[in-house]
Amino acid sequence: MKCAQHTCPGFISVPVSRTVLQQCLQARLQVKPAEEQSEAQFVQIDRGMVIYICFFKGATDDILPKMVSTLLNLRLCESDSGRMVSVLELPGSVLIVPQATLGGKAKGRAMQYHNNIHKDDGLRLYSAFVALCEKELMAAAASSAGRGAEITVKHGTYGNRQVLKLDTNGPYTHMMEF
Amino acid sequence: MKCAQHTCPGFISVPVSRTVLQQCLQARLQVKPAEEQSEAQFVQIDRGMVIYICFFKGATDDILPKMVSTLLNLRLCESDSGRMVSVLELPGSVLIVPQATLGGKAKGRAMQYHNNIHKDDGLRLYSAFVALCEKELMAAAASSAGRGAEITVKHGTYGNRQVLKLDTNGPYTHMMEF
Repeated sequence: MKCAQHTCPGFISVPVSRTVLQQCLQARLQVKPAEEQSEAQFVQIDRGMVIYICFFKGATDDILPKMVSTLLNLRLCESDSGRMVSVLELPGSVLIVPQATLGGKAKGRAMQYHNNIHKDDGLRLYSAFVALCEKELMAAAASSAGRGAEITVKHGTYGNRQVLKLDTNGPYTHMMEF
Repeated sequence: MKCAQHTCPGFISVPVSRTVLQQCLQARLQVKPAEEQSEAQFVQIDRGMVIYICFFKGATDDILPKMVSTLLNLRLCESDSGRMVSVLELPGSVLIVPQATLGGKAKGRAMQYHNNIHKDDGLRLYSAFVALCEKELMAAAASSAGRGAEITVKHGTYGNRQVLKLDTNGPYTHMMEF
């Protein structure tokens, strides 16, 4: 995108999604709240990475392959030897948490979310993002013969409250926009 | 994201710090690792907010009052009635986690931290940020007569590994730059 200022010779790259990444020893997320007749349901991963994700207006499916490839291949996790490696190399699991609050901007003391994508489009992109992560992680697990037997992709329910419990050996929190 | 051209009059000021904010029911952070003669030491807060913080090159003390005032007064927490309120209004505790990884930028598959502030300056700003948070939170607690008896500010040791355990009822993750 061209910079909005007509005197500016440069470009502005407006992000269409924001992710926050934390490595974990264990993470547990509620995917269905308790109801009168049923207990709450949870998903859980052990060692790996939590991806909090929010899509902004203008996001399309086109960005998903690059997002997933980048997030799974960036060296964001610490190996047993202390070297930084990707979650695929670890190999570790991935917990994906939809997090619309990441799109918040302060206006006075309130947070506003006007730049967030419409809920229907967000759900579609989120589902496609999850599916692509599953595909990439499973392909990597299959090729790493045995080492990745326990790795998995889990994810939260889009639109729900994300009741999360996290245990880390240092979250190494990163922020990546696309 | 900002216009890349420094000559552009539309250039929105370059941020000198990045924070990630999560509300918690309980958070526990290691402040001293275990050694041969001693066990690891931890600090803990109950309900409140975790502030992960990273300073970039160019950050000075001047930004701290605005940062602290904004973070403590923004409506980032959910009250018992479900209304969004500030951590001061909750009233809740604050756990401050130094998190240099927040300054990371991807270069190929590696993360680089060239924009992070020099360690000595970072420690000084971090210490001043913690002190200012303590002052503001304690002043608010004193004026809220009794309601805030349990609230406190805890923080991690700058430069250490931040071994963190987090329990949430929905982290409501926000990102704020200053």
